[in-house]
Amino acid sequence: MSEDKALTKKSENITDWYNEVVVRAELADYATTRGFMVIRPRAYEMWEHIQSDFDKTIKTKFKVKNAYFPLLIPESFFRKESEHAEGFAPEVAWIANTDDQNRLAIRPTSETIMYDSYGKWIRSWRDLPLRINQWCNIVRWEIGITRLFLRTKEFLWHEGHCVYTNEKDAKKEDLKILDEYAKIAENMLCVPVIKGEKTQKERFAGAQNTYTIEGIMPDAKSLQMGTAHYLGQGFAKAFGVEYLDKEGKKQFGHQTSWGFSTRLIGSVVLMHGDDKGLIIPPALTETKIVIVPILIKGKEEIVLKAAKDLEKSLKQFGAFLDDRDNYTPGAKFAEWELKGTPLRIEIGPRDLENKQVVLVRRDLLQKNFVSMDKLKDEIKNQLKEMPKALFDKAKKVQDALITKVNTKEEFLEYSKKGRYLFAPFCGQVSCEEDIKDNTSLSTRCVPFGEKAEHKCFWCNKPKAKMTYFAKSY
Amino acid sequence: MSEDKALTKKSENITDWYNEVVVRAELADYATTRGFMVIRPRAYEMWEHIQSDFDKTIKTKFKVKNAYFPLLIPESFFRKESEHAEGFAPEVAWIANTDDQNRLAIRPTSETIMYDSYGKWIRSWRDLPLRINQWCNIVRWEIGITRLFLRTKEFLWHEGHCVYTNEKDAKKEDLKILDEYAKIAENMLCVPVIKGEKTQKERFAGAQNTYTIEGIMPDAKSLQMGTAHYLGQGFAKAFGVEYLDKEGKKQFGHQTSWGFSTRLIGSVVLMHGDDKGLIIPPALTETKIVIVPILIKGKEEIVLKAAKDLEKSLKQFGAFLDDRDNYTPGAKFAEWELKGTPLRIEIGPRDLENKQVVLVRRDLLQKNFVSMDKLKDEIKNQLKEMPKALFDKAKKVQDALITKVNTKEEFLEYSKKGRYLFAPFCGQVSCEEDIKDNTSLSTRCVPFGEKAEHKCFWCNKPKAKMTYFAKSY
Repeated sequence: MSEDKALTKKSENITDWYNEVVVRAELADYATTRGFMVIRPRAYEMWEHIQSDFDKTIKTKFKVKNAYFPLLIPESFFRKESEHAEGFAPEVAWIANTDDQNRLAIRPTSETIMYDSYGKWIRSWRDLPLRINQWCNIVRWEIGITRLFLRTKEFLWHEGHCVYTNEKDAKKEDLKILDEYAKIAENMLCVPVIKGEKTQKERFAGAQNTYTIEGIMPDAKSLQMGTAHYLGQGFAKAFGVEYLDKEGKKQFGHQTSWGFSTRLIGSVVLMHGDDKGLIIPPALTETKIVIVPILIKGKEEIVLKAAKDLEKSLKQFGAFLDDRDNYTPGAKFAEWELKGTPLRIEIGPRDLENKQVVLVRRDLLQKNFVSMDKLKDEIKNQLKEMPKALFDKAKKVQDALITKVNTKEEFLEYSKKGRYLFAPFCGQVSCEEDIKDNTSLSTRCVPFGEKAEHKCFWCNKPKAKMTYFAKSY
Repeated sequence: MSEDKALTKKSENITDWYNEVVVRAELADYATTRGFMVIRPRAYEMWEHIQSDFDKTIKTKFKVKNAYFPLLIPESFFRKESEHAEGFAPEVAWIANTDDQNRLAIRPTSETIMYDSYGKWIRSWRDLPLRINQWCNIVRWEIGITRLFLRTKEFLWHEGHCVYTNEKDAKKEDLKILDEYAKIAENMLCVPVIKGEKTQKERFAGAQNTYTIEGIMPDAKSLQMGTAHYLGQGFAKAFGVEYLDKEGKKQFGHQTSWGFSTRLIGSVVLMHGDDKGLIIPPALTETKIVIVPILIKGKEEIVLKAAKDLEKSLKQFGAFLDDRDNYTPGAKFAEWELKGTPLRIEIGPRDLENKQVVLVRRDLLQKNFVSMDKLKDEIKNQLKEMPKALFDKAKKVQDALITKVNTKEEFLEYSKKGRYLFAPFCGQVSCEEDIKDNTSLSTRCVPFGEKAEHKCFWCNKPKAKMTYFAKSY
């Protein structure tokens, strides 16, 4: 907190603001290892909350089991599934300790190394569905400017990999997982998302279908917040993931994979933060309240004592007493606003006399006097209201950015105005490449339920579907 | 379970037995990536139990916070602390994507990369103690035969790294952490351990003191189950981990690091398993009971219904009904004995008539008839007794292996007999190297509280302390 320079205003330059706030609020640091990040405790805690919530869900609702597969993957594995190999080739980090015949890659994703095992483990229809997940680190040698949480050479994620006897079951469960992703985004992170399917060009390398949840950020860029892929039987054929069906006939498995990563933390920062810093949704932090004592000469002891008692009595909310004697209350307010703690309690001599405290919610920053005997109820109430308020505010921001266009002219016009576009599109790779070259926008997804009843705004072919376009993180 | 060959007997060849049981009980697999392992769900679950228990402890008792640091470490960092660099140099995996000036290593441990950040974060005595932990994967390019969980090129661990203003606080907390390690080993894993300090030769590279818990395995080898290092100020000086004290004077921090790894799972297998397979201590598995229905023609439905009801009513113990119709009860018994599930319930038509079940505890394998109305109490009772029984049995095995020797002759004699030796030793590196060359035994630790009042059995110098010697995993 010794940074004296004022924080860049979010409304003026969201990129600079983001880069500053992530570091100053002690969420993450640029590592000395170029392109890598250090995830600091304040952000790692958010990840732990997301992790624990989702881990419980997949174990109890989906009977998924966790496991751990090797970090290093033989090059020969990548070659087995050609689309997959091609998709990941530019991003792979290789190990120097091995021979050139079969180099080892640091996992950019684990389909190949996991399915090599699946091929050995699965024998009969009785072994299916097989549902395994791992929480791990991933390395992708991405070039370009490092953005903490959003674009780094290493990140943390989970990857679920399931095998089914048929396409219908595989897709059905894939979509259920996507629903769980949306719940996490909307209920925990308070970020509204669009659910849909990726076009051919934007699909995962090796997938037949990629389902996605996309969050519209305040700068109209799209943040892909979780994807679930239906892989068909391509990997199964490459890695011998086959089983004997009830009639004793060999069949290839139908596979899915799905994941989200620590970039979710980036979405929280971008979506909710303001000119004063972070705003952390209550579900993502243990410390939901910070208590700042207002110390006036001669009354220090009595106030500090009351503040300590308060900290104890509000333990269920992870209350933290900031009793540092080398900062003014004002400096403390600024620090905790920067760090995004959901609620602040101020307590001074006069409050003690009046048996009250001042309660300030981070997103509103209004001072409310709350009498001591109603404090717990009011805290519970605010912690319940705050996620809704964050969600609603985010939704308004997003809705104002979405712009429906029908023609090439409109598209070109609004793509320059920083909008999140919704346009009838044919889905062809060639058209999409053309559009990207001309506008630097790409498709984000076709929302579920859209009908092929339009003409493509770009090539005029029929059977186009309404499709979202944006720049992406 | 299609392996028809009988399991090697533990008493006849514990090495083969171990290698077989780990794979057959589906704990782990040799990965196609040579030297690496796949940790399968049955073992990963054990790791999750250990992890969740210890994570809670360090957060609540020690105010440790979790974070995540980069997988890749610049070579220049290793050079900053010479002993550390020398110790880890032979085991490092390097990345090929980088230039030769400052290569990147996959972390073999994270002191250097973490303290690079600590040097930036810590400014004042108010920032101390700093206590950070990470759960992560580690790569050490070890040569030699792969032993699943015990010797693989990659493993999972946690590493805690703390900074204090003084040596006393640092060491005190280091030893408290060691106590927590011992609790996990003895209470969760049911493996009795020796607590003590490593000799100079066996210390962690860069540490001034290494404290350890050592488990004596049934083959008299020692398994290091957790270590806590006092690093002094060496790393602090190398990485600028300094703070202003209350007088405004610059001081270097006193540092500690501590960790345990997935090799703990290996200790559970080695210590408790028997000729029929694994024995899993109840605290390490969700599924504490398997229910095997005894299906006799004409009575299948009524028995299956009762077994299902039982599974439901025993949900709190994670009861699992094995209702596969293509295995005999005998084959199921063998499979769950191999897999080490703590309790088995058998239920057949006659049991239904008598309102009872057969309850079998994995370590005893005795069939006990338990009436339905007393079943839950008896299960609770057995789950309470079993860890004690496992611990006591292990303690007896260990005690029988420990052999106190006083002379070189005795030492040489008993080192050939596969004993865990306890001998007065001077602690000199040169003596220790000599002993290792002659016997292939190394020191495991000097138990806390031993007095320097003996003559060294090897060089006869005075001020020797009673010290444990063994081969190590």
